[in-house]
Amino acid sequence: MRLRHVKDAHEKILASPYIILEPEKYCHKFKELFNNDNPLHLEIGTGKGKFIYEMAKNNPDINFIGLEKYESIIIRALEKMEEEALPNLKFIVADAKNLANIFVHEINCLYLNFSDPWPKNRHANRRLTSPFFLNIYENIFKAEKLIIQKTDNLILFASSLKNLNNFGYEFLEVSLDLANTNISNIETEYEQKFKSKGLKINYLKVKKM
Amino acid sequence: MRLRHVKDAHEKILASPYIILEPEKYCHKFKELFNNDNPLHLEIGTGKGKFIYEMAKNNPDINFIGLEKYESIIIRALEKMEEEALPNLKFIVADAKNLANIFVHEINCLYLNFSDPWPKNRHANRRLTSPFFLNIYENIFKAEKLIIQKTDNLILFASSLKNLNNFGYEFLEVSLDLANTNISNIETEYEQKFKSKGLKINYLKVKKM
Repeated sequence: MRLRHVKDAHEKILASPYIILEPEKYCHKFKELFNNDNPLHLEIGTGKGKFIYEMAKNNPDINFIGLEKYESIIIRALEKMEEEALPNLKFIVADAKNLANIFVHEINCLYLNFSDPWPKNRHANRRLTSPFFLNIYENIFKAEKLIIQKTDNLILFASSLKNLNNFGYEFLEVSLDLANTNISNIETEYEQKFKSKGLKINYLKVKKM
Repeated sequence: MRLRHVKDAHEKILASPYIILEPEKYCHKFKELFNNDNPLHLEIGTGKGKFIYEMAKNNPDINFIGLEKYESIIIRALEKMEEEALPNLKFIVADAKNLANIFVHEINCLYLNFSDPWPKNRHANRRLTSPFFLNIYENIFKAEKLIIQKTDNLILFASSLKNLNNFGYEFLEVSLDLANTNISNIETEYEQKFKSKGLKINYLKVKKM
């Protein structure tokens, strides 16, 4: 994604009550942060936050965290919260490589929506379903590991299918054309644009005990 | 596929030296039929036989059998053999449902090329990668089970991915755009037509011990 420079993004993030500024400090303590015992769902690469915001709004009994690397993008997600704040949604600005320092056996479900496909073979370990990342996820998940992925990219999706199978994940749902299924779906901003061109979305829901 | 009636198809098949007429009789004895100890590869739904013929020609140290349900189609495959007969290729006219009566722990590799997708949910168990068929394959494979599938159909492919994963198959190779990979590929007649329209081929190679 081409990043637009957003003025004062860093200052806005420092001042926002919806951002967890030093997430490592909440390791083992996210229950306290949300002040309840509800399940915790994480989206990596939350972008402008449409997906995670609507998920949080529709599922008040689940806590959601949106992780995003880029400050200039995530401030768009904060704007939604400024309009109508949701108590069960927070954001973290961090690189997914550092996830293991933030969550230790606390996540129930992980969303990977239209992640960077890193289509070149030499970058394959940067994909969010590479063995490198699957090993990180082993420690962030609570018990049952649930991953839900959506992507338009055929290289990323084929790679995910192979890696998740090889890593012992059980496939619960697979679709190569999400719009033509009964699977309930909240669209991301990117997905809306992409679908409007008539292109197909790949979907995968997998589980590991 | 719309079937054209082919005059005398049945008579031609009865007279052909390339067809195994009573395949059940060769159960446990396919080695004798080919007069060697080479591996045995099977294609279900061999159609007009381009794929299996070229595979057999390129791999003289492997025995190949093409299984096809329709007499009026398989006689096209016989015409190739009449031009240039290959000693390591035979054909069987039979329904895949009866495979377990023909092969008992004799197959090393199974090809499923552009199989009937049976896209309606109520017909899902007719797909050649349904649990019904995967159970049949358990007994036809010798030891290591190797299945290679190609299809343009997104419903069939998604269903195959889920079923093969759930059945314990390890994914060796997955592609949602076979033409853009280095995977060596012999095209079927159907594949050639389909590809000429610029459409994408899905490919899956899986293994189970």
